[in-house]
Amino acid sequence: MHLIKTMITPFNDEYYMRAAFAEALKAFDAGEVPVGGVVVAGGKIIVRVHNLTETLNDVTAHAEMQAITAAANLLGGKYLNDCTLYITLEPCVMCAAALSLAQIGKVVFGTADEKRGYSLVSKNIMHPKTKISGGIMKDECAELMRDFFRRKR
Amino acid sequence: MHLIKTMITPFNDEYYMRAAFAEALKAFDAGEVPVGGVVVAGGKIIVRVHNLTETLNDVTAHAEMQAITAAANLLGGKYLNDCTLYITLEPCVMCAAALSLAQIGKVVFGTADEKRGYSLVSKNIMHPKTKISGGIMKDECAELMRDFFRRKR
Repeated sequence: MHLIKTMITPFNDEYYMRAAFAEALKAFDAGEVPVGGVVVAGGKIIVRVHNLTETLNDVTAHAEMQAITAAANLLGGKYLNDCTLYITLEPCVMCAAALSLAQIGKVVFGTADEKRGYSLVSKNIMHPKTKISGGIMKDECAELMRDFFRRKR
Repeated sequence: MHLIKTMITPFNDEYYMRAAFAEALKAFDAGEVPVGGVVVAGGKIIVRVHNLTETLNDVTAHAEMQAITAAANLLGGKYLNDCTLYITLEPCVMCAAALSLAQIGKVVFGTADEKRGYSLVSKNIMHPKTKISGGIMKDECAELMRDFFRRKR
């Protein structure tokens, strides 16, 4: 039994996105637009963040921006080539450009942002070497956003 | 004499850009890409910032990002509609998108950034209500950048 357990690794994209989603729920509970993320390096979650724009009264306090600052601080280097960011919502232009400056290795997002997603402006905002994938837990991530804005109305 | 002095106001674009340039010189002296800025509200300089990416080991520590956070903190609101940012270099995509999120009233930049300026990607990254002007002290601002990169080589 133990052997089988170690062979079936639970550390896949959905595992990490579930951790990002748990962060998004914290944002939701705090009245923030519910976006959460984690940074993974060497298979380990090294940073957990959620949107804090209302709490900090600062439009730059998106989860991704905090993720970059925190990961660079932890790793001791400003480039994040060996890191993957899991984020529940497609990054906006500001965050995509910041992730590009950080040369992040990979970005995995949950649901697309049909209003403010960076890809609506230009896919080239991300760094050419950054791998991008989307759609992990997209229904849950999208439903959380819809639920938030429904309650706001 | 006193009457004439008060009639000729020194508080024009060049006055504020000179303050931004003084910040850029601080960045230069610290080995940072020499970009400086000030935020003006009600004719007063309320924030002075310069690029700190090397010092803080953080790609998000551009002068403009610090300016937004500091001004919002000072003014007690995250929107900066009544503020003008004077910045020695045209903002990059990250900073232009952040300035858009902050709905800043006006951006006055010194020299254009021919490699990383936001306008190379899309002028629409800035908020449609934000007034933009460029070219104030552009020769000094451009020369400072050239001088910096010459020394780096």
